[in-house]
Amino acid sequence: MALIHYPVVNKNGEIIASAVTNLDLHDIARASKTYGVKAYYVVTPLEDQKALVEKIISHWVTGVGAAYNPVRREALELIRVKDSVAAVIEDIRNRGEEMPKTVVTSAREYPRSIGYETFREMLETGSPYLLNFGTAWGLSESLISEADYVLNPIKGKCGYNHLSVRSAVSVILDRVMGVRSEK
Amino acid sequence: MALIHYPVVNKNGEIIASAVTNLDLHDIARASKTYGVKAYYVVTPLEDQKALVEKIISHWVTGVGAAYNPVRREALELIRVKDSVAAVIEDIRNRGEEMPKTVVTSAREYPRSIGYETFREMLETGSPYLLNFGTAWGLSESLISEADYVLNPIKGKCGYNHLSVRSAVSVILDRVMGVRSEK
Repeated sequence: MALIHYPVVNKNGEIIASAVTNLDLHDIARASKTYGVKAYYVVTPLEDQKALVEKIISHWVTGVGAAYNPVRREALELIRVKDSVAAVIEDIRNRGEEMPKTVVTSAREYPRSIGYETFREMLETGSPYLLNFGTAWGLSESLISEADYVLNPIKGKCGYNHLSVRSAVSVILDRVMGVRSEK
Repeated sequence: MALIHYPVVNKNGEIIASAVTNLDLHDIARASKTYGVKAYYVVTPLEDQKALVEKIISHWVTGVGAAYNPVRREALELIRVKDSVAAVIEDIRNRGEEMPKTVVTSAREYPRSIGYETFREMLETGSPYLLNFGTAWGLSESLISEADYVLNPIKGKCGYNHLSVRSAVSVILDRVMGVRSEK
């Protein structure tokens, strides 16, 4: 899985690099660990943001946080910081994995969007997939158009679909990787 | 729904009043709005914490935040701040609703825990339910034992079930109030 901070769009649809949010690291790492995600990539090309993320991780993985809350360590050690989606894919390849297919999420529906049940079945084949989530107002159109697959949006009941990225990740992981028998 | 800051337990199992987290207000209000929750009660008896929550809400509901991001207003106006679960129930009654049954969530399983499908069917009858989530290390045993129902924990795949409360709320609302056809 990857949480993208660049290229994403702002409120006006302009391409920006968003700032990393501390709780995105914690919440999404904990959800990743719960649902069995192999790695949680935090993607930002900004050097100060990369340094900040590394500092937070090291506090919880090797610093005093690791002794204070070992359960948090288990989650945060899934995080890997990279410059771009290309660098993420290179890292996956360097670890001896097959080339992953890329899947993007969006609050908008596209003609080629696929459903959660379909993606769940794709994951169950064992083939590698890189699932990308956007921060700010969402992934750039370039990332969406380059992806192999687009997931359906979470629409909800009342025409309001403005979940935080932390909520969207949690719900989507539950839908595609959650234990069936506990639902 | 209610997010409880007292009585909850800390790491050592002691009863505490936890601090309100800004992103709990935003993320859980947005999830509540998405899934059609009627009201999102933030429960704390601490005066400074109540004042803080009211200040944040007023910024987004009637202040400059409302013009900057009207979508955020729609979510945050679901929030009501109360001292205790008893005060929440009193408020629900004062609004002319029937007495709600109380449902609590926990990362632990209890002999009387019920499944998500069961709770979904209970909600579909139209009867009122108050669904309670704990902050910190979870709801006090007193709140759990006094509740009418306890929901099964979200166990995940690998024996790691330490979701943030923001993630747990999102997943549980999706399981019990999510649109079936989009899953």
